[in-house]
Amino acid sequence: MSHLEQSFSVRFQYKIFFTTSLFKRSNPTLLNFFSEQPSEVRKILFVVDQQVAEAHPNLLEDIETYFNQIKPINLVKDILIVPGGEVSKNDVYYFNQVIEAVNVYGIDRHSYIAAIGGGAVLDMVGYAATVAHRGVKQIRIPTTVLSQNDSGIGVKNGINYKGKKNFVGTFSPPAAVFNDNQFLLTLSDRDYRSGIAEAIKVALIKDYDFFVWLENNADALVKRHVESMDYLIKRCAQLHLEHIGGADPFETGSARPLDFGHWSAHKIEQLSDFAITHGEAVAMGIALDSAYSFLLGWLREDKLLRVLNLLKQLSFDIINSHIQINDLASPVLIGLTEFQEHLGGKLTITLLTDLGQKAEVNEMIHPMLVKASHYVTAYVRDCLITSDNK
Amino acid sequence: MSHLEQSFSVRFQYKIFFTTSLFKRSNPTLLNFFSEQPSEVRKILFVVDQQVAEAHPNLLEDIETYFNQIKPINLVKDILIVPGGEVSKNDVYYFNQVIEAVNVYGIDRHSYIAAIGGGAVLDMVGYAATVAHRGVKQIRIPTTVLSQNDSGIGVKNGINYKGKKNFVGTFSPPAAVFNDNQFLLTLSDRDYRSGIAEAIKVALIKDYDFFVWLENNADALVKRHVESMDYLIKRCAQLHLEHIGGADPFETGSARPLDFGHWSAHKIEQLSDFAITHGEAVAMGIALDSAYSFLLGWLREDKLLRVLNLLKQLSFDIINSHIQINDLASPVLIGLTEFQEHLGGKLTITLLTDLGQKAEVNEMIHPMLVKASHYVTAYVRDCLITSDNK
Repeated sequence: MSHLEQSFSVRFQYKIFFTTSLFKRSNPTLLNFFSEQPSEVRKILFVVDQQVAEAHPNLLEDIETYFNQIKPINLVKDILIVPGGEVSKNDVYYFNQVIEAVNVYGIDRHSYIAAIGGGAVLDMVGYAATVAHRGVKQIRIPTTVLSQNDSGIGVKNGINYKGKKNFVGTFSPPAAVFNDNQFLLTLSDRDYRSGIAEAIKVALIKDYDFFVWLENNADALVKRHVESMDYLIKRCAQLHLEHIGGADPFETGSARPLDFGHWSAHKIEQLSDFAITHGEAVAMGIALDSAYSFLLGWLREDKLLRVLNLLKQLSFDIINSHIQINDLASPVLIGLTEFQEHLGGKLTITLLTDLGQKAEVNEMIHPMLVKASHYVTAYVRDCLITSDNK
Repeated sequence: MSHLEQSFSVRFQYKIFFTTSLFKRSNPTLLNFFSEQPSEVRKILFVVDQQVAEAHPNLLEDIETYFNQIKPINLVKDILIVPGGEVSKNDVYYFNQVIEAVNVYGIDRHSYIAAIGGGAVLDMVGYAATVAHRGVKQIRIPTTVLSQNDSGIGVKNGINYKGKKNFVGTFSPPAAVFNDNQFLLTLSDRDYRSGIAEAIKVALIKDYDFFVWLENNADALVKRHVESMDYLIKRCAQLHLEHIGGADPFETGSARPLDFGHWSAHKIEQLSDFAITHGEAVAMGIALDSAYSFLLGWLREDKLLRVLNLLKQLSFDIINSHIQINDLASPVLIGLTEFQEHLGGKLTITLLTDLGQKAEVNEMIHPMLVKASHYVTAYVRDCLITSDNK
């Protein structure tokens, strides 16, 4: 018996641009980006979230006008419109539509597929782009708070399978991300606020100063103050990028610290048939796992209360029936097993030891989760804490 | 306008083991491999090429017996059988079968999917493994000369789409490759010989000494001398690995030097409805592009004749009707466009400047391809060369 050994490294690099009115003729962001790319003739195919196209009736025309002035790249005239939200990930039909477009329009490996939309649409289009010809260049143009500060800027793509989130997908970085704050103007208050949950999450596990900033700017964020949201998105994106670029970008290990609060969040989304948004579910998960961190003796109670207060200030519903763990048969507890199965290996859950500080456990004590859930419910119901609830 | 920049490297590493009777109880290769892996409980799902299962009636039982003695890993009792050859890549049904098995048997990201079969089955199973949960560990056990020395040991996975080869797929290295020379014993002479084409190819572009070795051992290879084939596979695998581990493992550029002779080979396979094997088509492509290299003034005629002689010694049919370019309307010429489209960017074709030396061109002169085709035909028909044929 003998063997040969293969070993190599692959370098990945991309930029996340922050801009206003990306497709305004005078905006040089996209023009500059394409001018800096290798000069061969390439194509760009756009796939647009239907909700975004409807909220921005001039968008398709603006894209066409903008690309008429960019010489080194040819816009595919037919722009593909796909439904927004999880429906685009739940039905493989939309993924197949993108693959067929690559076939019909002769999109090659040096050409681009640009997706404009919320996180779900970016996930689905990104997956199709990364497997077509084993990888067409993908450009992400996220249009929600959540996708601009978190899901749209990372390296994950995927679609659902039989209701299981991201059951098939790839780790594959985009060629570039363009965050345009104008897309946020047409979001509903609910969607706008929803995306703030990931900022709270990343602040809680990584950056106390950012958590304090969120406390101080909660009112401005509720009032949709543009500069505050610009700062939030950029800081949150930066913290996510730093983490992804760290030790394990393609998640070969079992730990996933960025998924603080997510084991229950994924399950809540599914239990609600995706009526609860990802951000809303994450807010619920943060409340639950922060309370659990307190009950475990890791997080001081006054700090837990600051977390719950912030969630309340931003009007997050953290006692929705789907998150409530009334007994050991509560369906959300199945989320622990599914979370472990998706990551593989040992169960690894991130908890808080302080605001901005995390640690991992390999076990969640179910009766303590029941208590944590009761604690959150009591907090919201009474807005005062009595030792009975512990 | 401002931006953030993301940048990171990912290291990939795997071993290619060479062994005899991998599933014999006394063979420690697999046992040692799994003993060296992290010790969490994991599963392994086998997917086996139907032709291989039929040629080795004890295989499934041997696998079961073998894994009974390996503590750190649990064999999934149901072994999936899929058809061998391109049919497994042409119909997405088989890909879906593997995804469903991952779902049903709870294969997580730290578990393994092992594929036993020819290159097509490894490509298909590898693709399913690399997208399930964004990447389950894949083990490749190639059973043909071609897959043991080339396609099975690299980083490419994929299936066909509407007849277009590898239209969807990934670049994703396996966890390990196990080359067992016992699988070669049951191959037909045709399949056995077919895989030698890739060895000739890699020798021609990279290693003159290996080419000379092939000339000197052609008879032994025809007689299926085991040690000769062992050497051929290992040396060929090594040359392929060195190339893949080089500058551009995931092929972000337009060049693909390992694809010497392949632009026509891909098309010939398709034109013959895959009745011509990949190796046979590559042999035809090598003959054509070597003759073209000569006509271009790059390769000396005596050296071209050594290439054609070697192909003849190994009984390759290099004047099949599908490779013949009688005029500018010959269908194989469409292969140039399709090759360019799949790779993207400029057309980049590898040719020979000497035995063991390559160079690239960005254009293939169609009338010269007609001449090259005629040259090969005349060589085979007459086995003597007259200047009229040039």
